[in-house]
Amino acid sequence: MKTSFSIQDSLLPFLPLLYIAWADGILEKHEIDYIKNQIDDNNTITDATKQLISKWLDPSHPPSARELVYWKKYIKQHADVLDLREKQDLYSLGTVLAKKPNLEEWANEKTKQSLQQIENYLGVSSHEAIRFIDDFNPALFKVDSNLKRSEAPYSKALKTLLQHGNTDLKNKVQSILDPHKEEIESHSEDLYSRREKVLQWTQELADAGLGKLAYPSAYGGSDSMVQYAAVFEEMAKYDLSLTIKFGVHFGLFGGSVESLGTNYHHDKYLKDIGTMALPGCFAMTEMHHGSNVKALQTTAIYQPDDQSFIINTPTHNDRKTYIGNAAMHAQMATVFAQLIVDDEEHGIHAFLVPIRNKQGATMPGITIGDNGHKMGLNGVDNGTLHFNTVKIPKENLLNKFGDVDEEGQYTSPISSSSRRFFTMLGTLVGGRLCVPIAGNTAAKKALNMAIYFALDRKQFGPPGKPEQSIMDYPTHQKKLMPLIANAYAYDFAHEHLLREYTSHSDHDAQEIEALAAGLKALSTWNATDTIQTCREACGGKGYLSEMYFDRLKADTDIFMTFEGDNTVLLQLTAKSRLTYFKKQFGRMDWWDTLKYISNIASTNLTELNALVTRDTSQEHLLGDEFQLAAFTYREEYSLRTLAMRLNKKIKSGMDSYEAFLDVQVHLIDMASAYIDRIVLEQFIGAIKKQEQNSVKEVLTSLKNLYALHRIEEYKGWYLEHDYISGSKSLAINKLVSKLCKELKEESQHLVDAFDIPAHMTATALKFY
Amino acid sequence: MKTSFSIQDSLLPFLPLLYIAWADGILEKHEIDYIKNQIDDNNTITDATKQLISKWLDPSHPPSARELVYWKKYIKQHADVLDLREKQDLYSLGTVLAKKPNLEEWANEKTKQSLQQIENYLGVSSHEAIRFIDDFNPALFKVDSNLKRSEAPYSKALKTLLQHGNTDLKNKVQSILDPHKEEIESHSEDLYSRREKVLQWTQELADAGLGKLAYPSAYGGSDSMVQYAAVFEEMAKYDLSLTIKFGVHFGLFGGSVESLGTNYHHDKYLKDIGTMALPGCFAMTEMHHGSNVKALQTTAIYQPDDQSFIINTPTHNDRKTYIGNAAMHAQMATVFAQLIVDDEEHGIHAFLVPIRNKQGATMPGITIGDNGHKMGLNGVDNGTLHFNTVKIPKENLLNKFGDVDEEGQYTSPISSSSRRFFTMLGTLVGGRLCVPIAGNTAAKKALNMAIYFALDRKQFGPPGKPEQSIMDYPTHQKKLMPLIANAYAYDFAHEHLLREYTSHSDHDAQEIEALAAGLKALSTWNATDTIQTCREACGGKGYLSEMYFDRLKADTDIFMTFEGDNTVLLQLTAKSRLTYFKKQFGRMDWWDTLKYISNIASTNLTELNALVTRDTSQEHLLGDEFQLAAFTYREEYSLRTLAMRLNKKIKSGMDSYEAFLDVQVHLIDMASAYIDRIVLEQFIGAIKKQEQNSVKEVLTSLKNLYALHRIEEYKGWYLEHDYISGSKSLAINKLVSKLCKELKEESQHLVDAFDIPAHMTATALKFY
Repeated sequence: MKTSFSIQDSLLPFLPLLYIAWADGILEKHEIDYIKNQIDDNNTITDATKQLISKWLDPSHPPSARELVYWKKYIKQHADVLDLREKQDLYSLGTVLAKKPNLEEWANEKTKQSLQQIENYLGVSSHEAIRFIDDFNPALFKVDSNLKRSEAPYSKALKTLLQHGNTDLKNKVQSILDPHKEEIESHSEDLYSRREKVLQWTQELADAGLGKLAYPSAYGGSDSMVQYAAVFEEMAKYDLSLTIKFGVHFGLFGGSVESLGTNYHHDKYLKDIGTMALPGCFAMTEMHHGSNVKALQTTAIYQPDDQSFIINTPTHNDRKTYIGNAAMHAQMATVFAQLIVDDEEHGIHAFLVPIRNKQGATMPGITIGDNGHKMGLNGVDNGTLHFNTVKIPKENLLNKFGDVDEEGQYTSPISSSSRRFFTMLGTLVGGRLCVPIAGNTAAKKALNMAIYFALDRKQFGPPGKPEQSIMDYPTHQKKLMPLIANAYAYDFAHEHLLREYTSHSDHDAQEIEALAAGLKALSTWNATDTIQTCREACGGKGYLSEMYFDRLKADTDIFMTFEGDNTVLLQLTAKSRLTYFKKQFGRMDWWDTLKYISNIASTNLTELNALVTRDTSQEHLLGDEFQLAAFTYREEYSLRTLAMRLNKKIKSGMDSYEAFLDVQVHLIDMASAYIDRIVLEQFIGAIKKQEQNSVKEVLTSLKNLYALHRIEEYKGWYLEHDYISGSKSLAINKLVSKLCKELKEESQHLVDAFDIPAHMTATALKFY
Repeated sequence: MKTSFSIQDSLLPFLPLLYIAWADGILEKHEIDYIKNQIDDNNTITDATKQLISKWLDPSHPPSARELVYWKKYIKQHADVLDLREKQDLYSLGTVLAKKPNLEEWANEKTKQSLQQIENYLGVSSHEAIRFIDDFNPALFKVDSNLKRSEAPYSKALKTLLQHGNTDLKNKVQSILDPHKEEIESHSEDLYSRREKVLQWTQELADAGLGKLAYPSAYGGSDSMVQYAAVFEEMAKYDLSLTIKFGVHFGLFGGSVESLGTNYHHDKYLKDIGTMALPGCFAMTEMHHGSNVKALQTTAIYQPDDQSFIINTPTHNDRKTYIGNAAMHAQMATVFAQLIVDDEEHGIHAFLVPIRNKQGATMPGITIGDNGHKMGLNGVDNGTLHFNTVKIPKENLLNKFGDVDEEGQYTSPISSSSRRFFTMLGTLVGGRLCVPIAGNTAAKKALNMAIYFALDRKQFGPPGKPEQSIMDYPTHQKKLMPLIANAYAYDFAHEHLLREYTSHSDHDAQEIEALAAGLKALSTWNATDTIQTCREACGGKGYLSEMYFDRLKADTDIFMTFEGDNTVLLQLTAKSRLTYFKKQFGRMDWWDTLKYISNIASTNLTELNALVTRDTSQEHLLGDEFQLAAFTYREEYSLRTLAMRLNKKIKSGMDSYEAFLDVQVHLIDMASAYIDRIVLEQFIGAIKKQEQNSVKEVLTSLKNLYALHRIEEYKGWYLEHDYISGSKSLAINKLVSKLCKELKEESQHLVDAFDIPAHMTATALKFY
């Protein structure tokens, strides 16, 4: 690259100095004088070089804007290839740029000192100046920081572990989205331009073949839900509107065609869905019916004369709403409606309804509304759909689990209408797997920034001594470290569930759905807590949009609602657990089942041993055995008392709806305890699979923190039920603080393993 | 108002029907036919009227847009004057409009039925249609709702009570801001236009004399912090950017001039500040120093030759940042800087520095930056200030607590530099009083919407029966009702503190500051929890911007950080409590003080009585005595163990900085317990002052819920310390659920007392 701006070799090592000096345009005369004096006083620099430097410091002939840009480019190009954690000052950066880095004129203690003094005088010995060389290296000008410059022995292995075998795929997503980072992080667009941008990025990912990964290979896919989820997770690091738009089209819309449709629909639509040639949406929720899907009011009435369906919205309250992709971009909708044949209702079925033509014009009989500005996810065009007697051909019924035959008779391979309903709702499970993965990714991003900020940020200190890193505050450790442990815990649980789901037999479908529902609830609540805590932990800086917390918070907030309200989902999990026991016993009625559960649960609940209840030894508290026993006890005790309560109410003549309403709070407790136990089991299982000792060790500490912190959160319950003594509870509190303090030393490595793109991490260290 | 659009009298009662029918422009042929049939079949309507109606239903001659607007106006004008809760359907609204409401043609059962059937057919028997008549009456078209139409016996008194004697002032604020409601609630503006809007509204409030209320009457004020706080609270219902912009200028900037300055400054500036002729900002925080104010790096060096100060920002990291009003509008800044006279540092002092001239041009030597887009409060122009050797006259030192005399000698009425520092920081107390009031108002607004939504929203139900209001779910009651109790609890505590502050003697200034710091922390955390829970409780609708939760959440988030980070503030409260005891004992050193505290605390901690520990009777649990004893026990026990821990560490040779760092978590616990006790005491005190029995009763239930829910939250602690038995803890859990269920019946009245403007409440019931 030869331009009029070429730089003399001897000047190269001083280029960072000159660039920093001029880049913010406020180089004062006294600063120029200071730099000149330092350079002049340095006998190791040749006079020729001194003159060159002096020329570039002349305030009457400052470098032009174009020259500055060229310098910046040059520095970035030559510094980017190195491990930049090692390069933290003007001297070491100069060394990288120098053509002859060992030349005596440059490489000597005197020059190093001169440059350091200049740094101090200019106040660039921190992250301040770095914005002028973009954000390629946050730690560049840090002189005195708690940030570590080397990796831990387990760093590489841990990072690989969390990529769960999808490293290449994840890198591919990063390489597609990195070039868009400035647009992605912009806050200056209006609603409509943002939606268009998000559509473009979705299309780019689709063009790279990343949308159709979960579809069968016959339609261009890889038949891999695992790979699809990996892409989902990676996108979530960049933009959650993109993640959700992508999920609505490929996951919900495409997924409904794949799993509720038959060969006819697959052949006709899946290829076009995979390329986004046919953008679609998933129209389930109505104004007045969200959680209670069974009661949706939209109707699909079969017309025997021309073998069609009339899709109709009875009243305005029955319009579909919050439908992602509907307000602007979808051309087709999977519409959930009551199927009516010959005046007989057959329950909720899914229908493909064209809502726009290729040119984007709304189809006749359909009114599309816009949900407008939302708390977050404003890159997704959520809208309303109103169907005024819209006719669709019979083939548009997604007919895998229910159909109307040539004679106009309703047929279904599943005779029980209730089982049929739940089988169809199984299509939501994919979303319930992916949403918490995206939520946990958002939590990881928040933790990464909060930890980098805390290691770097200093405030208060012993009298007369330097201030202290806020990561050294016990309150700060207690806030952040358990959340890191949680992020690992949920990561392993999600991975487990994903593998189970993709390899499951029909037999355990219901169990997986129950687990997915409950895990989605606990994991997304944890993500919200984490993001909130991290924001607060970054103080005023955490409030600036540059720190991402605003979008992380606002975008993930709906995660607790969509794909099922968390409180409703946990009740579903609990009921499903009860049904699981019912099934195990064959054709038992509720009354017998509840009695049965009470019995098996109380058999498992062995007599509490007073010695164990009071055992406060670290060996005991840090063992899998105690932790698992405590988690299981809570689960089985909740299960038993729940069964007993229900039993009593039903026996006394209460109908089962009322009885379940009465024990609602206990259903939530039981389901949470169940999910907690599964998460701990999976954490323990993941550790067992590791081969490298250093990885095992650090994960074991995290697992201990996860488990003991959870027990601490539930200590009220454990004490109420005499499972632990007061002194044991106090010992657990102490041990949690100790683990927080110990793991604090690893905090940077632990969040590095989350593989958050460097330019994001960098923002935590920048002070504009 | 006579226009060509005049409406025949006989048509008036049917105007709402016609308006609703046409207003959304999708009146279908079958709907027209249905309406016509209903009207035609009604023998009580005269043929002339039938023809009139029929004419207005002709699809080939629909009413023009201007006609529709005229109808709407007419309906609004005539319906607005009535208690609209009573008017819930087309029939009753028609009755309001009818010139002769008792005319037989109209007022009969047949017409009522016809209109009801039309409503049902059109699906307007809900809130849907209401958007067309603006938002003047949410409940207008509700046919079947849990919303109550009458007030409770305590309603008026409770509302008045929460206005704390400022009803007129609050109405004044509402009357100024109501006309701006559409602009205020818009989400379509960019950052810069929004800031200008917020500035305009602030100016309007200033013009009405509402900004200067806290200033002395000599400068146009009312000398009333209480009135100022009432205005602050009322603004918070509308827009928190406005609230904070107002607070920055009148409270922080004006307050610093008033309380740190002397007559010279008051005479010269206070009037102009009160009218906003001199817009200002409060420049304390720096890039690298937020919480640690003592270590601020900005310098103010005294120049004896011309009796001036040079204000200087040493390095970029020392720039002032997050300064509200700085980026665009302030002309003067109160700058906190290290005062240096003759090379000697005298600690942080405040200086008035002009930063812009009247035309808005930046003054020489000053560089102003913009903090850009933030998570929330984007109507406030936060910015950075960099001072490059800026000269100001000596008089610009706010010299109440420290001055430089004619001889160039530093003088101060307070000899201890530490006490001087804390006295100056006392200027922050006003903000620490107001911020939690605004936060609690935001929480009240959120609760108001969540309760209205929950009473109205139906989902699930017994088989074959109508769906149930979600407010009837125990999980929902458990989520929302304790938060209503908290909102009342904090309201009374804030009011108490405000009155104490305005009437305090210097003697108890430190105690009030400690209380303000701690209460601000707990109250703002409670606001965040409340808003979050309410958002989730409103499901998908809660995520739409129309429901306000987005701004409430994002705007209040920084409340936990500014005016002091909550975690840091609680430590301040705790340390101040320790100092309080130290002072009580005269010239005692830390070691003796800690021993002393351990002793007095353990004297207060009477032996636990096993009978009381196990007493599960309602009479006992619902009594002030048990609740106060439980709160006090937690406070004094925390205080004693804290003193003992510190004692041990200091005795073993640890320096006091390290010792306090080590017990950080315990400082937080102790301070929280102290604040909780004060809040409960104030709740009890507020009830005692009431005269009306119904008010006493409902407040007592709320107080019980507040207290027992708090004990439930801390049950782990109480059980660990054997203060309550397991069975008592379980009894408290049950009682909390019972109170939630009982108070649920009052929920609408309880949130009505918050006096949230009707158009806001209305959004909870609208489904666009």
